[in-house]
Amino acid sequence: MEIAPIGRVVSNEGGRAEIEVLPQYQDGLYRIEESDEILVLYLFDRTDEVRMRVHPRGDPRNPEVGVFASRSPMRPNHIAATVVKLVAVNGNVLTVEGMDALDGSPVVDIKPAKRRDEAKLL
Amino acid sequence: MEIAPIGRVVSNEGGRAEIEVLPQYQDGLYRIEESDEILVLYLFDRTDEVRMRVHPRGDPRNPEVGVFASRSPMRPNHIAATVVKLVAVNGNVLTVEGMDALDGSPVVDIKPAKRRDEAKLL
Repeated sequence: MEIAPIGRVVSNEGGRAEIEVLPQYQDGLYRIEESDEILVLYLFDRTDEVRMRVHPRGDPRNPEVGVFASRSPMRPNHIAATVVKLVAVNGNVLTVEGMDALDGSPVVDIKPAKRRDEAKLL
Repeated sequence: MEIAPIGRVVSNEGGRAEIEVLPQYQDGLYRIEESDEILVLYLFDRTDEVRMRVHPRGDPRNPEVGVFASRSPMRPNHIAATVVKLVAVNGNVLTVEGMDALDGSPVVDIKPAKRRDEAKLL
């Protein structure tokens, strides 16, 4: 299946990141501010390498694990998943805390992870 | 980006599901049994519809929310994400609890979500 970006991580510094959603998808953010935490799926677009076993955090001193037991980018489908805190919504721009993505990473999906009323969804 | 299945949900009944990973990716499961919970990314392959606003759980009595504030399948990229409990690993077959996927759903990624030693990874 072909997947395409719905937005992009446009800045990531000081623990805060901004996710800019493409204008044609902005209406899909309606009422997202009711979420305290969101799951962001984005692409590891700096590598196309795939390995079945990896050293966690790329450190050869860490014993090998299978790629599906790791968060390594070197996976068959180069999709990253991270739960972040949603701190602001301004039009098509989300400000989040706890994002580990590199600047410019293509975002492919956003889902609610925890509502502000504390119902945990993920 | 093109994504391809790494396995499939082969049965889902009585609260337990089996995920069969393709043989060429089995080594990627090495040490996955150290995870108590895993994040499974799979495809909503029964729909190609996309909407920006949806009624949660498809029930028109539920007020509309944006698709990114929902878990609806009618999203631009038809990827589902669910955290499930890993109860057994036998070769290339994982037995999990709490999977909401339909039988036959293509699985595109598996990531650790919580280790058995209680360190939360997601």
